[in-house]
Amino acid sequence: MLKFYYAPHTCALASHIALEQAGADYETVRVDFATNGQRTPEYLAINPKGRVPALVTDRGVLTETPAILMFICQRYPNARLAPLDDVFALAQVQSFNSYLCSTVHVAHAHRMRGYRWADDPAAIAEMQRKAPAAVGECFALIEREMIKGPWVMGNTYGICDMYLFTLSQWLEADGVDLKKLPKVGDHRLRMSEHPVVRKVVMEELT
Amino acid sequence: MLKFYYAPHTCALASHIALEQAGADYETVRVDFATNGQRTPEYLAINPKGRVPALVTDRGVLTETPAILMFICQRYPNARLAPLDDVFALAQVQSFNSYLCSTVHVAHAHRMRGYRWADDPAAIAEMQRKAPAAVGECFALIEREMIKGPWVMGNTYGICDMYLFTLSQWLEADGVDLKKLPKVGDHRLRMSEHPVVRKVVMEELT
Repeated sequence: MLKFYYAPHTCALASHIALEQAGADYETVRVDFATNGQRTPEYLAINPKGRVPALVTDRGVLTETPAILMFICQRYPNARLAPLDDVFALAQVQSFNSYLCSTVHVAHAHRMRGYRWADDPAAIAEMQRKAPAAVGECFALIEREMIKGPWVMGNTYGICDMYLFTLSQWLEADGVDLKKLPKVGDHRLRMSEHPVVRKVVMEELT
Repeated sequence: MLKFYYAPHTCALASHIALEQAGADYETVRVDFATNGQRTPEYLAINPKGRVPALVTDRGVLTETPAILMFICQRYPNARLAPLDDVFALAQVQSFNSYLCSTVHVAHAHRMRGYRWADDPAAIAEMQRKAPAAVGECFALIEREMIKGPWVMGNTYGICDMYLFTLSQWLEADGVDLKKLPKVGDHRLRMSEHPVVRKVVMEELT
């Protein structure tokens, strides 16, 4: 059985939805960020990065959202969560998810975790001030160039939708005006009504 | 034929090495960052992100290093640049590359491109000041936890090696002490002596 370490309100939600959608045999372990549970020796032995998500498999631990998402797609191919038989289409999926992890999530992190890149409180405050503009710029590009519609990759629902939904949860808190992002807003609404998404969100928040 | 857009001294080097190693039929186009070539209307029509690398294929444009690397692996499977037949091992490759793009490259970018996340010159200077520590922490984790040896994934040379080599080019300029990173240093040296790597590095720098 897979064991999935997550915390609410983190990017782990994407992999959690994918596990549930794939019908995976998994159990969840909630890591308590409020007590710095991600920094305990026990958790660091599982994931030395001290972050979530982490997926424990019978062959070892996997970390990083794009990698876990693709692993779930390949381990449960019948769930059809990515175009595994089309090298170019799969690369487009990887490209989208890579942009989310390396640029979009990073822009967001400057509001919450500026201490990673600066010690001076004034600099950290300045990063927080700019975060709405930086995150907004990323989502404007997603809105304009990336969402094929109705799902991210067109007619097929899959891991890009789960990951985009996860990061789009944070838009209001990041100070981004959703009215300028009708496709993103519509996508988020439809995702939030999906039975599997609702089930996972409820589990994480209760 | 594939068309590969790159600039010297960027993460595009990883994909460039992979294309050459795979024996791909490709041509290169150098984007001149000194004249902001990545911001011209012509280039933005190819890659709206205004960054490199970008790989133009007969089906469309691919961006983001981890996606391009995996595309090259799958399009040229005989080159054996990733363990395509082993779902878990492939996920480990993706996890490593995802860490490089989302955390390591980002830590580095705070030395050169702090303007992405702050406007105040004092905050940008503070990010530059902390970059050696942030990049150093990433590479300490790579040294301690990730390099299986002799190559990143053990006995098999592949895309993780090309990507790690690319980012490790910047260590001195980032102010990281290579003496504390013997595995990373040894890996970089062996990579720099590889005929394909030498050929690509020479082409990019001349």
